[in-house]
Amino acid sequence: MTDPSTKVVVIGGDAAGMSAAAQASRGRISTRIVVFERSSYTSVAAAGLPYVVAGSVHDTTRVVARTPQEHRANGIDVRLDHEVVGIDLEARTVEARSTVEGTSVVEGFDQLVIATGAEPVRPRLPGIDAGGVTGIQTIPDAELIGSIIRERSPRRAVVVGGGYIGVEMAEALLDRGLEVTLVERLPQLMPTLDPDMADLVSAGLGRLGVVVHTGAEVDGFEVGPDGWVRTVSTAAGQFPADLVVMGLGVRPAAFIAAEAGITIGSTGAIATDARMSTDVEGVWAAGDCAESLHRVTGRPTWVALGTHANKHGRVVGLNIGGTHARFPGVIGTAVTRIGELEVGRTGLGEAEAITAGFDAVSATIEGETRADYYPGAAPVSVKVVAERGSGRMLGAQIVGGEGSAKRIDALAVAVWSGMTTEEYSQLDLGYAPPLSPVWDPTLIAARLTGRAVR
Amino acid sequence: MTDPSTKVVVIGGDAAGMSAAAQASRGRISTRIVVFERSSYTSVAAAGLPYVVAGSVHDTTRVVARTPQEHRANGIDVRLDHEVVGIDLEARTVEARSTVEGTSVVEGFDQLVIATGAEPVRPRLPGIDAGGVTGIQTIPDAELIGSIIRERSPRRAVVVGGGYIGVEMAEALLDRGLEVTLVERLPQLMPTLDPDMADLVSAGLGRLGVVVHTGAEVDGFEVGPDGWVRTVSTAAGQFPADLVVMGLGVRPAAFIAAEAGITIGSTGAIATDARMSTDVEGVWAAGDCAESLHRVTGRPTWVALGTHANKHGRVVGLNIGGTHARFPGVIGTAVTRIGELEVGRTGLGEAEAITAGFDAVSATIEGETRADYYPGAAPVSVKVVAERGSGRMLGAQIVGGEGSAKRIDALAVAVWSGMTTEEYSQLDLGYAPPLSPVWDPTLIAARLTGRAVR
Repeated sequence: MTDPSTKVVVIGGDAAGMSAAAQASRGRISTRIVVFERSSYTSVAAAGLPYVVAGSVHDTTRVVARTPQEHRANGIDVRLDHEVVGIDLEARTVEARSTVEGTSVVEGFDQLVIATGAEPVRPRLPGIDAGGVTGIQTIPDAELIGSIIRERSPRRAVVVGGGYIGVEMAEALLDRGLEVTLVERLPQLMPTLDPDMADLVSAGLGRLGVVVHTGAEVDGFEVGPDGWVRTVSTAAGQFPADLVVMGLGVRPAAFIAAEAGITIGSTGAIATDARMSTDVEGVWAAGDCAESLHRVTGRPTWVALGTHANKHGRVVGLNIGGTHARFPGVIGTAVTRIGELEVGRTGLGEAEAITAGFDAVSATIEGETRADYYPGAAPVSVKVVAERGSGRMLGAQIVGGEGSAKRIDALAVAVWSGMTTEEYSQLDLGYAPPLSPVWDPTLIAARLTGRAVR
Repeated sequence: MTDPSTKVVVIGGDAAGMSAAAQASRGRISTRIVVFERSSYTSVAAAGLPYVVAGSVHDTTRVVARTPQEHRANGIDVRLDHEVVGIDLEARTVEARSTVEGTSVVEGFDQLVIATGAEPVRPRLPGIDAGGVTGIQTIPDAELIGSIIRERSPRRAVVVGGGYIGVEMAEALLDRGLEVTLVERLPQLMPTLDPDMADLVSAGLGRLGVVVHTGAEVDGFEVGPDGWVRTVSTAAGQFPADLVVMGLGVRPAAFIAAEAGITIGSTGAIATDARMSTDVEGVWAAGDCAESLHRVTGRPTWVALGTHANKHGRVVGLNIGGTHARFPGVIGTAVTRIGELEVGRTGLGEAEAITAGFDAVSATIEGETRADYYPGAAPVSVKVVAERGSGRMLGAQIVGGEGSAKRIDALAVAVWSGMTTEEYSQLDLGYAPPLSPVWDPTLIAARLTGRAVR
């Protein structure tokens, strides 16, 4: 007698893979689920790692949303320390290798979920393998940085890369008492922000005490006789460093999928349809290795973010479990906090909108987070990007004090639903002196952009 | 030679009246503008008064958004201490009386703006005129409470009324070191919240140290031989009091308009059309004396709130100034903060929705304001109300820790635009551990409500 249940193999035990597995296991269709995860952890919230380094999250295991034991208790066969080295679409099998024992296992599947995540960008620069040069993508990375700080008491840190992870790590190392220099190849930090808004972030980091150098592409590391890094060499000069954190971001880990013949999109991530299916029947992709639809451009995009990974995984798990589910796409919403400074963005930036073919205009206002007479009212800059003529909102960016970043959500709902600046400026948003001025700054920004669209 | 400019008279120099005047003065049509204000202030942000009492706003004048001098510098003829006692629509004149000198003046108008605001509910109870019994609607009210606290060192305060102003005053007096009892006639606090959510506010006030009694209608005040209040007598017992703040809310100050023959709506406020015109040509109403369209019920509603007053005034001023402008309505969004507790609501409550004829369902979730591992993550309860079948979102309520209240704005945009729970639950909202869990709690609440609508 054959087992009538559907055999599901999941490659990758991150948020996307485990969400897919958990959701599939609760579906209408009977499943047996095997997850291969190459690390020793499941369901890691990678976005939490800078806060582990900062010391604001004391216990590394706190960023594990659900342990392998918990997943196993739900009937999911989680195999840690197993790296999948090949997918055979003909035979419908995957081959996994134990990174501990070196042995191989071949597992058949009816349904396959590819959740291989992202891998850090790590250019082959001279000296990059020196002691004290590390990434920040995994729990062992965070633990390594912690042990270097404890055991070697580094004084000067250089963070390479000025995107989200870079600025978050700069603050984290500052919190640990290091002198921090942030170097970025481009002429601005935070390339997902327009230059004018990115400059506000740069100024905010400066006030915190981070030394920021833009236009500073790294060309190598000087290594001491002890094998540890001494300086970081860049187009903008040499910077002494006892610790270097590479925060150049990530790219989709799509190699295994590509090798198997699954279609990779123009972003470098696995191409998916609205159900998060690849172009091979019964093979799904979820999380940082997969493309999403960008709802504003209508084109595929690639955003590595835990919130999408969770949603992708849920959609895949629902589809495997017998419920038709769609992932409706993303609009590039992102937030972060660096010290007192909060940053939010959604939709398209102005330059991005023009590149995407929109006749885009914008306005930026400076407002306050609370009634100006209320203690703790902080400056906030809000930029709204809209389409000339129609007034359709294409995107927005916010940089300001406490209470600024999550204001992007109201703008995100508006961008998502194609609202105009005119309509947004008249919305009924929450007002109370400790929480908002009588005109929320996002309303004023939308109103001014509304003048520019005419 | 006659003056070709339009003569505009504004009755009331609050936020609505002064916004109308300021906007009209910048219009395409030449205007002469006279504002009659019965107090000695203009553009008072009444919502700030509890924070003046609390001491968090140190200087009373900080809640004045723009002084009479500033308005006069913009060419607006502001006449303080002038109460309008009659409107003659036939003659197109108003009669105003100087509250200082007792003299009368009659002023003609081409366009009239009625911005008479709201007046506090103050029942004629025995003892209500005793010393130490006060309201909290004007700057003199706030100053009176301040001077009582300084000069008489009251130990026990009773706040009468458990709406926004009542709970805000309870916290303010607690901040000033008083023992505070809050008494409310209804079985729950915060009648704009559903009972389950209001109970969370009640519990929060209790944790702060406020003694809360619901079902406690006041029937009078015991007055000492010195003429000062001694106890507050209620249906739930007697409460000793050295200071009593009447926070029973306000009602529209529409008497002058009604007497002149202008149509008053079923809410008791002045009926308006989408341009904020009354039913008399050239006579406009704005602010706390005027009705608004409720976008969810499609019926007139009355909400006394500074943010609407400002928007009403702007629309009236634009229309007077020669630009066609509409006020698109309200959805009853409101927020407040009481200690660490934040409250937000928008659209219709569940009971309210049923009363309005909707087949309404709801779900409530308990989530966290930040990633659960991030320091300062606080519980937050989110309730979403939706229409059975269609899934259209009708309203939402939030009670929780820091960062909770303004999350209502994203829900407000959704309610405003008629989004479904299904669509909301898939939105791309901001995620970063210090600011939000990977699934924003509002997304989870919408998803669960989505199950209930089927």
